[in-house]
Amino acid sequence: METRFNSQLLERAVSELSKLPGIGRKTALRLALHLLRREPGEAKELGQAIIDMREKISYCHRCHNISEETTCPICNDSRRDQSIVCVVENVKDVITIEATRQHHGLYHVLGGLISPLDGIAPSDIEIESLIERVRTEDIKEVILALSPTIEGDTTNFYIFRKLQDSPVKVTMLARGLSVGNELEYTDELTLGKSIQNRIPFS
Amino acid sequence: METRFNSQLLERAVSELSKLPGIGRKTALRLALHLLRREPGEAKELGQAIIDMREKISYCHRCHNISEETTCPICNDSRRDQSIVCVVENVKDVITIEATRQHHGLYHVLGGLISPLDGIAPSDIEIESLIERVRTEDIKEVILALSPTIEGDTTNFYIFRKLQDSPVKVTMLARGLSVGNELEYTDELTLGKSIQNRIPFS
Repeated sequence: METRFNSQLLERAVSELSKLPGIGRKTALRLALHLLRREPGEAKELGQAIIDMREKISYCHRCHNISEETTCPICNDSRRDQSIVCVVENVKDVITIEATRQHHGLYHVLGGLISPLDGIAPSDIEIESLIERVRTEDIKEVILALSPTIEGDTTNFYIFRKLQDSPVKVTMLARGLSVGNELEYTDELTLGKSIQNRIPFS
Repeated sequence: METRFNSQLLERAVSELSKLPGIGRKTALRLALHLLRREPGEAKELGQAIIDMREKISYCHRCHNISEETTCPICNDSRRDQSIVCVVENVKDVITIEATRQHHGLYHVLGGLISPLDGIAPSDIEIESLIERVRTEDIKEVILALSPTIEGDTTNFYIFRKLQDSPVKVTMLARGLSVGNELEYTDELTLGKSIQNRIPFS
């Protein structure tokens, strides 16, 4: 039985909040009652921030990362190496890789991975625009930074095939031991890859 | 290290969302990116629902439950028994008790419990207004529906003392076995209470 409240406004806020992923009606009610207890300005700022973000953020026409302008700040940053493009699945991955501070080139956000099971074909994601960028921009290296899953590997392979005849260098993220993890608890496939791809000690 | 985004608008939305209880920056980012992927209308409705709720909901002058009008729909409902008042700690407890459909009288929301440790004195919560209601309204029974905790019991006792000289009947929620729970796993205090307060078999 769904609990009803004696306020349509509360009902509406709870119903909207519970559309968010991982937030059920109970949590939504807790959040709404929390906001009711706080200063009115706090709810106003939260609500307005959500509206503004959705209205004003769109996508970079070049790399498809989120951007408030036609071209995103990363693409516009002349200090970044314009000849290296890191291919990622989604916007979140850009944020994750930026946090490592190890990539100083540009990005290309696919917006998904090839997945025949989920009905996602190569034409549904931003692969054609990547090929076009390689053709028209002065790109020397494409780093494939997709998840080591079946979908990620399929997409990696598809892009690799498409770029095979172009002079661009195609690399991918290393597979190996997780820093800080015990060797004993590393799965066999990863351990095997880390032996195949062993690197000079330094 | 705090992850930074290349959008001030995203940063602001994440920062506002992560002020909510139980929502950290990672969850806030997940929610924001989810909203960015959905129709713009969805974010607009969520944001507006939060703003409207906080702006337009206030408190019933009589029972202190949330209300869009000066007096809440429960107090205004002539079909409800105006002679029985159920005393609860907060707004959430009204919703919880309403969901049982077992209380057909009115409410009185204290807005907290007496707690010397947290510095909450009787004058900090709506006890005086309850005594006033008992004095001026035609109330026959006050049901104390507070949590069976030290704070709840202290508050129960304080209210009971205050109402001792008035002709109103003061009752409290039964303590006993939880429906569906094994006797074996019921704590001794509760089991003891359930023996003391045993009821005729029916």
